[in-house]
Amino acid sequence: MYSIILAGGSGSRLWPLSRDLYPKQLLNINSDKSLLQATFARLCELMPVENIVSITNGKHLSNVKGQLAEYSKDVSVLSEPTAKNTAPAIAAATKFIMTKEEDPIILVVPSDSLIKNTKNFVSTVNKAEKLAQEGYIVTFGIEPSYPETGYGYINVLKQPLLDGFRVKEFVEKPDLKTAKKYLEEGTYYWNGGIFMFKASVMMEELKKYQPHIFEVADEFDFSKNSIIEYNVFNKMPSISIDYAVMEKSDKIALIKLESDWNDLGSWQSIYDVSPKDENNNVLIGNVVDIDSKDSLVYSSSKLVSTIGMENTVVVETEDAILVCDKDKTQDVKKVYEILKEKHDDRHLIHKTVYRPWGFYTVTAQGDGFLSKLIHVNPKQKLSLQSHNHRSEHWVVMSGKAKVILDSTEYILDKGNSIDIPLKAIHSLQNPFDTDLEIIEAQLGDLLIEDDIIRYEDMYGRV
Amino acid sequence: MYSIILAGGSGSRLWPLSRDLYPKQLLNINSDKSLLQATFARLCELMPVENIVSITNGKHLSNVKGQLAEYSKDVSVLSEPTAKNTAPAIAAATKFIMTKEEDPIILVVPSDSLIKNTKNFVSTVNKAEKLAQEGYIVTFGIEPSYPETGYGYINVLKQPLLDGFRVKEFVEKPDLKTAKKYLEEGTYYWNGGIFMFKASVMMEELKKYQPHIFEVADEFDFSKNSIIEYNVFNKMPSISIDYAVMEKSDKIALIKLESDWNDLGSWQSIYDVSPKDENNNVLIGNVVDIDSKDSLVYSSSKLVSTIGMENTVVVETEDAILVCDKDKTQDVKKVYEILKEKHDDRHLIHKTVYRPWGFYTVTAQGDGFLSKLIHVNPKQKLSLQSHNHRSEHWVVMSGKAKVILDSTEYILDKGNSIDIPLKAIHSLQNPFDTDLEIIEAQLGDLLIEDDIIRYEDMYGRV
Repeated sequence: MYSIILAGGSGSRLWPLSRDLYPKQLLNINSDKSLLQATFARLCELMPVENIVSITNGKHLSNVKGQLAEYSKDVSVLSEPTAKNTAPAIAAATKFIMTKEEDPIILVVPSDSLIKNTKNFVSTVNKAEKLAQEGYIVTFGIEPSYPETGYGYINVLKQPLLDGFRVKEFVEKPDLKTAKKYLEEGTYYWNGGIFMFKASVMMEELKKYQPHIFEVADEFDFSKNSIIEYNVFNKMPSISIDYAVMEKSDKIALIKLESDWNDLGSWQSIYDVSPKDENNNVLIGNVVDIDSKDSLVYSSSKLVSTIGMENTVVVETEDAILVCDKDKTQDVKKVYEILKEKHDDRHLIHKTVYRPWGFYTVTAQGDGFLSKLIHVNPKQKLSLQSHNHRSEHWVVMSGKAKVILDSTEYILDKGNSIDIPLKAIHSLQNPFDTDLEIIEAQLGDLLIEDDIIRYEDMYGRV
Repeated sequence: MYSIILAGGSGSRLWPLSRDLYPKQLLNINSDKSLLQATFARLCELMPVENIVSITNGKHLSNVKGQLAEYSKDVSVLSEPTAKNTAPAIAAATKFIMTKEEDPIILVVPSDSLIKNTKNFVSTVNKAEKLAQEGYIVTFGIEPSYPETGYGYINVLKQPLLDGFRVKEFVEKPDLKTAKKYLEEGTYYWNGGIFMFKASVMMEELKKYQPHIFEVADEFDFSKNSIIEYNVFNKMPSISIDYAVMEKSDKIALIKLESDWNDLGSWQSIYDVSPKDENNNVLIGNVVDIDSKDSLVYSSSKLVSTIGMENTVVVETEDAILVCDKDKTQDVKKVYEILKEKHDDRHLIHKTVYRPWGFYTVTAQGDGFLSKLIHVNPKQKLSLQSHNHRSEHWVVMSGKAKVILDSTEYILDKGNSIDIPLKAIHSLQNPFDTDLEIIEAQLGDLLIEDDIIRYEDMYGRV
């Protein structure tokens, strides 16, 4: 069995913890694993690591690779050259898998749902496999526990089909009255976006309902490398797999997901799945609370003190704080959109910015200057680069640095410093075994990330 | 006429904006002046600058002097060598004033109340002066507008005494039922801590009711300088002027304060006095709100986003955030006490720490290192000092620095840097006309403020 992890997704609904460049699947809340890592670990119970293929946007590639590197050094991560919704991504990833095995069973899972009971998940997958072998595209339905209006539903015929049901129809997000009716009828399930198929069956159905995608997918050449060519991918329409195939095909079966499931689509749902204290609060991080109840308070760095709050969500990050009525957490998306409109970068990035080589934080900013704390992981190096508008000064705070400056190499120990003049060609490198931390003091008339000319880069960013 | 501004006071009730080392009177909320500065400016309408004497704790001295320097270069600020409540402070300041004039009228005011209508305040003071000339200690009573249980009350006899009333008794903070009774009776006033007396009258009453304070006060010698000697001051008991004199003397009169008055004793009262928007919100700083009402949201630096909140106070500072039910803002004091018990410095100081020469902010901290952004005001210098546990590295980010390092003098321009080795005797100075900003990178086994040996200091801190 093979698996495709859909690891795209935006960062709007769990803002300010999630950002456009650091979305939900990369977060770990109340866990030592991110949702992506937990998803990957769950699949490892079902198949060898090398059978798991993740696909994500280019902008998340280094973070996804970085998080999965903990499981395997040569994990397969495909990068979508442009955003095209799920159908093109699944078509490309399926073609990629078919270069390894002619016609395997493929399990497709989102990277950002929470499933705690892996054993039951595995047993559902095993049941689904029989249906997939019979030529069905099997979708995993979640039995609704309340009349949710935020999910799509799948309606099934009552008579069983092996361990599942034949799907009658996919229906859009209902209003509350309709959702209540669905709940009563007992043949409606939530659509959790998990499904399984034989590669050849999916390709046949694409051929039948999305011939253009099918034809373009044939142009992919994964025989030499795992790069999805922009010129090929870009020819595909932007369409979801539900709309492209699932809602049209007559080969769709549903199997009831036997484990727990939560899409963690809002702070309300994070609260719901988290362990509570005696006042029904979820207090995470450096929190001093007096007399609050039914609230979620998340501190990532600063002290947060709450007094007498009820049914409230407080989320603190280094550069933005959210205080929200717990019943209105869907509106967080509106804040995200407001920031986007205002060109306020806080919808996009955290104060700490992750790069393939490590991360940095802007620690101080003033008229004509800026300082950063730069963290370079072992064996990593920043590109060979120059700046037209700023000089830099580096001080090594921990570890050891190798610096290339105008073709000369310097080794800097803790406490050593070096000047990087305007326009000098330079690279900061950490070829050593321990983390490197430096303070960078920038001086200049224009202090922006875009003021960079790259000459060489081990991550292909030239 | 002379005046004493009582500028002590702790920072517990407006935490996290106020701190032990940066209390309420130093804050400016919705104003370009701090409460202390507004108090000083109000008194300037009544008397020459040199007749206004402030008295504060040693720990606030440089901040108080710094804020008042905007009004006059040689403003009188007395420093209490130890905390002894209001009676000893008033006795000392009265003696100080009596070295300038034999028996003047003295107006005593707290530094942290808000009075917007200066004209009416001045007219009340003028009426009070007549009573003070007649030998009364005149207290300014605030007519209660609701049954407040957080203030002390003053009960007066009904028949007028000049423009005021003779005081019958001072009463403690009442319960709600008693407060309602006071409101109905119409002879009860709030005690706002403002009063006026002839110096000789106060000294006589001290002699009668607090002979020990009176005797010790005679030992002060302000003929040469304005220093309150620790050895003298420390002999005094710690007692409030209310308890020491006001509640005992039969020479107490009350005059009704004709202006507005607010003690700004809680975030609730800050909300009350602030202008509201159409949703009855007070939104200060970088705030994005959706559908909140009746709330106060104060951002000092980060983005704060509020969604659907009601009757809530949110206060953001660089290192601590408060989210509080607006009806429970009195409990902020409890958080302050909890932090004090936990030895969490956030009750004491802000991330930005004010010094006589300017201020600094810790911008980054890691294993064995720490970095600061240091701001030195023009014509100021840090002490000549050395450290036993850390080396330092300085980079000039703006302005120009003079550095003394082991008796050698260096001038550093923007972008220049210098190493300060372990135990080297050094001083950072700004003899120039513009602000100096440097980044300091500290490296060492123990990175604490106490690791400092001072050899010379222009602010007397050796």
